Order: sequence, then structure tokens, then C-alpha cells
Amino acid sequence: MNIKLTLAFDGTNYHGWQTQKNSITIQETLQNTMELIMNDVTEIQGVSRTDAGVHALSYIANFHTEKPIPVDRIPIALNSLLPNDIRILNAAEVPENFNSRFDCTSKTYIYRICNSQIQFPFERNFSWHFPYPLDIEKMQEAASFLLGTHDFSSFCASGEQRENHIRTINSIEIAQHPSSIVGDDGNRPAGGLPSAPTNYTTISINADGFLYNMIRIIIGTLTKVESSSEIKKILSSKDRTLAGPTAPPHGLFLKEIFY
Amino acid sequence: MNIKLTLAFDGTNYHGWQTQKNSITIQETLQNTMELIMNDVTEIQGVSRTDAGVHALSYIANFHTEKPIPVDRIPIALNSLLPNDIRILNAAEVPENFNSRFDCTSKTYIYRICNSQIQFPFERNFSWHFPYPLDIEKMQEAASFLLGTHDFSSFCASGEQRENHIRTINSIEIAQHPSSIVGDDGNRPAGGLPSAPTNYTTISINADGFLYNMIRIIIGTLTKVESSSEIKKILSSKDRTLAGPTAPPHGLFLKEIFY
Repeated sequence: MNIKLTLAFDGTNYHGWQTQKNSITIQETLQNTMELIMNDVTEIQGVSRTDAGVHALSYIANFHTEKPIPVDRIPIALNSLLPNDIRILNAAEVPENFNSRFDCTSKTYIYRICNSQIQFPFERNFSWHFPYPLDIEKMQEAASFLLGTHDFSSFCASGEQRENHIRTINSIEIAQHPSSIVGDDGNRPAGGLPSAPTNYTTISINADGFLYNMIRIIIGTLTKVESSSEIKKILSSKDRTLAGPTAPPHGLFLKEIFY
Repeated sequence: MNIKLTLAFDGTNYHGWQTQKNSITIQETLQNTMELIMNDVTEIQGVSRTDAGVHALSYIANFHTEKPIPVDRIPIALNSLLPNDIRILNAAEVPENFNSRFDCTSKTYIYRICNSQIQFPFERNFSWHFPYPLDIEKMQEAASFLLGTHDFSSFCASGEQRENHIRTINSIEIAQHPSSIVGDDGNRPAGGLPSAPTNYTTISINADGFLYNMIRIIIGTLTKVESSSEIKKILSSKDRTLAGPTAPPHGLFLKEIFY
């Protein structure tokens, strides 16, 4: 059987997805928990590595097992044993040849920036506190130069091991809105607190794939860009040093995976 | 000078407001930080003790200092030194006789219950995961018996040291709504995740004062109540053992203080 898992995780306490020496990762935590309930599982294949501190609203992974198991019981069984910063949202049997990583056609990430002068404490691990004005129209215009198929070497950290730096960005959507952990219906922390209006900018990016730190460098660059055409030059230079700083990981969420 | 501070805190890592031996508290953290920037401050007086793990969207405290200081610089100065789970939202000079604790006329707390089968990892410290159906109408009806002035001994933990257990509850509002850390505009984690719809119940309570664990016992009782009139009997019995369990602290937020 080939089982596809959909999971969400708060990446704050993990060193990203992929198992590594001397650091706790999501993959290792999930694999160890899985082996407590099933003794013949293969290595869990995840849709992507994620950086330390990056979160997932919807992450896809798959594994094989020889023993027929009641698939609908897997989320309950795993959730009862996993730490509560990792939650299995769904489990489903998929064709034997499904591979969560290689069959993925595109991914959507969302990056959250807290623009308020003061960042509410509940948001500190879930948004980048950037208390400076952002020109959303200019950012959106600059972002439009990144759409389509390009060599993204300028937006790739030196740790990237893949030689091919060509990727296709299908969409970049920038929006401003109030938001907070306490949510709708007047229960926002901002209610009655004129000194701390919550104001968030979210940048949603869909692409066929991303290079190492690519989104975080794009975000860091978009917040610094002075004229929108500047980004065209940065892109064509293929020179990482011309792009902006790498935005911190804790504002980044993997949001949706497409197959 | 008498300075009033408005602050927000994530109580997860603290043993409540009040300074105590062998535990880190908000008051102690704030006092120590204050003394780094001002060397003649009095003990900071907070509007209320809060239990370990309880949060504040808007907490009020005050302190006296002999040295005239630029009040509008206090939030920036303190926030640059405080851990980012405590944020000063505002500072203002108030009359010398203002006392944040004794002048308070009422407080509003909000309690958040996550009713979804799966609690999103981002919500684990900010809502009580209670994945069972709640009859909101019945809860609201039961809550109505608590309105007004009563002896709340049935809803008071044994640690309470004050002898007078009479308090006045002005309002209890129960609402159901979707909500999540990622917020509005389709950026909810629930979007595209049919297996994990987020569904929250919030209970907002305003009273002139609260006994030790009073709100948490009220919440625990409201979730268990079978007939709404049951709560009338519990109240008049003045017997803690007849009320329900104490709901966990991490769903509770101090929301607004009235003077």
C-alpha cells in the first residue's frame, strides 16, 4: 500500500523537514512515531525540504507498507502520539507509483509580514515583524518581473546543490489586511487597542519549484526594492549579491501542493 | 509621576503575572527590564494575578517614578529589551492616585475553545482543544443563570484566599465562528483543507472581579452541563465539587479592563 499523508506543522521547534544528524526534524519525528504504530513502513518521502522555523498549513508526504491497514485510523493513531506542533490532517491510499516529491507540479507558499509598529506576542513565531511602510503597488509591479520561466540564480542561497536554477513562477499575489490569532468577529487583539493596530501584508507565491531560500530572498528583495524595474536587473544579473536580504523563516508557510 | 502601562503577553512561558520564588513571571520580567532603563521605579502594580499559561490582549499595570521621563519613549525602550512574548502597547501619565488594581471596575476575559476534530498546531497554546459538539443555545441559557450578583463559591478553586466570594457578572457572550492564526481573506489554514475545518467557540465574560480559577471552572461547567437549570443548583449549593472541571489556562485571554 502507498499512503499519502496531509499534515500541518508549526516549524518553530524543528530544524526543517529532512532528517539530519544532531537536529530534531519533522521527518524524523514523524518516522519514529509511525514506527510505533506500524513496523514495516518505508522511509517517509516528503514533498520538499523546508528550512528550520518554516511552517506548513498543508504538507504532503507518502510512505509504503506491506500490511493492509485501516487508512482512516492513521490520523487519529498518529495524532495521539505526535507532539501537538505536528498534526496529521488526512491519510489516503494512493496508486503505488505516487511520489509526493516527484509528482508535485506546483506549490503555493504564503509569507506573512506584520507591518504594525508593535507585533502582538501571539504572532512572534508566525510573521516577520517589519514595522516600516510598504508600497504594495510597487511591490506588486516589481513582483510581476519575476513571473514566468527564469534562471533564479540571483534569488538562490549558496547552499543550493542543484545545478539547474531555472524555475517557473505562476503567480505572486500581495495583499494587505488586518489579521491576528484571535481572528474574526471583533475578537481581534486590535479591538480597542488603538496603539497596536494589526496590519499584515501577505505574499502568496505559486511556482513549479523553489531554489534554496528562494522565497525568503524574493521577500527580502521586494521589501527593499526602490524602483520596480530594479528587480529586472537583479534577475538578469544572476548575482545573489545584488538581491536583498533573506527574510526570516518564521513568516513562511507552505500552503498548498498541486499534483 | 504615575505611569500606566498597557501590555499584551503570551503567557505560555510564564508562571502568571505575580512575582514568586523559583518561577519566571511577567511582573518580575517587566520589573527587571524597567530597572535597566529607570533606576527609581516602585514595584509595578498589575490589575490582576493571572494563572500560569493565561494570556493578555490588554493588561494594565502602573508604577511610580520620581524622575520626569518622556512617557512616549517608554514602549519603544521597554520593547527593545523585553522578550518578544511581552509587548508594551502604550504608556501614559495618570493622576498620582491611580491604582491599576483597586480602581478597576470590571474586566472582560475571553475563552477560546477549538471545536474542530483536529487542532491546528498554531493554535495549540491559544485555545482549548475540545473536539466534541457544543450546544451553544444551551450553554447561553445556562450562562444566563450566572448573570448578576451571586456567591460564586461553587466556581472557586480551593487556593482562593479572599473570604468574600460575592461577585457580579455583567455579561456572558458565547459565539461560534471560524478563526485561526492566519486570519482573514481566504488565508485561513482551513482553506482547501476539508479534513480540518477550523471551528471556534469563544466565551466572553465581563465581571467586577473573579475568584481564583472562576472563569476556568465556569467554562469547564458550561461544556458539561446537561440541562441549563442544573447550573442554578450548582450556584446555590456553594459546593465546588458539584461544578465541572477546570478548563485549561491556555484558552484564556484577559481582553479589556474598565476603570
